[in-house]
Amino acid sequence: MSVLPQILKTTVVARSRLFNIESVDLRFANGNEVSFERLVGQGTGSVLVVPLSAVDQLLLVREYAVGLQRYELGFVKGRIDAGETPDQAAHRELREETGFDAGVVECLARVSLTPAYSNYQTHVFVAQDLFESPLDGDEPETLETAQWPLADLCGLRAREDFSDARSLLATYLVAEKLGQG
Amino acid sequence: MSVLPQILKTTVVARSRLFNIESVDLRFANGNEVSFERLVGQGTGSVLVVPLSAVDQLLLVREYAVGLQRYELGFVKGRIDAGETPDQAAHRELREETGFDAGVVECLARVSLTPAYSNYQTHVFVAQDLFESPLDGDEPETLETAQWPLADLCGLRAREDFSDARSLLATYLVAEKLGQG
Repeated sequence: MSVLPQILKTTVVARSRLFNIESVDLRFANGNEVSFERLVGQGTGSVLVVPLSAVDQLLLVREYAVGLQRYELGFVKGRIDAGETPDQAAHRELREETGFDAGVVECLARVSLTPAYSNYQTHVFVAQDLFESPLDGDEPETLETAQWPLADLCGLRAREDFSDARSLLATYLVAEKLGQG
Repeated sequence: MSVLPQILKTTVVARSRLFNIESVDLRFANGNEVSFERLVGQGTGSVLVVPLSAVDQLLLVREYAVGLQRYELGFVKGRIDAGETPDQAAHRELREETGFDAGVVECLARVSLTPAYSNYQTHVFVAQDLFESPLDGDEPETLETAQWPLADLCGLRAREDFSDARSLLATYLVAEKLGQG
């Protein structure tokens, strides 16, 4: 099973402003031929940034999520623009969404989402040594930010509106990084 | 910001076998009008199941992921079929992908993925008291399963081909549930 299936043909079956849906015809090593659909997003992925203040407060962003039709609490998130490195995107998104930049930004993981259907990947960062340095973003309304004590990650994970698997994972990665349980 | 944006119009802009892409016209509380795209999948979500044997071995599944064009190691995963509860889907997928059923199946979390773009949600389960009870699935090739010691979650998380944010999160949820670090 270490032999990759052979890609016989890839066809774009639907296209929108943000997404391409491809149909991929595959032949598996056992001879079986199947068609799988996958979603191909723009660009090279996205970043998620956990901003941590000098007094051990996490900065959260509250933003309308049209997928779930509700406001969601989460960390700084955004697409990596063309020509940007993940690090640069982390700094830019942090400034746009919180008004702070960070002296230290460190990548904790690169994760996939629904790898069976999508090439979407997210780089998870922790940002420290925060200082004011706002940058205008393209949000339809001013984002509300909130502080949350690092000491109460359990309370954060239990919130109904803190549901993004990447944000939840990031709380564990940051706790591990900082040696907190 | 507790006032939800008003949905003015929802239009299907692209459609494929598995996906619908909708354009949603919104008016935010501040009067700004924008259009967001979102992806609407079939059905009511998916399950991810962490099977844990009596001798503290995790069962992993190795499956071709066309999104990343490589084999990925992960936990049991699949869609909740029409008319199924998440619990029922967890039992069925476990039987199809590993050949085992479980005496005890417990939901640890319900998480979203890219809530800004999608309504996709995954119920994360841990399955214990495993016993043989295979069920035919619809996979194009026989799935390879592997055992991984619960005592070495760090080694699992460090693997390049164990990249799904939900699988990574599940390792922390299971460790927390079992009181292991």
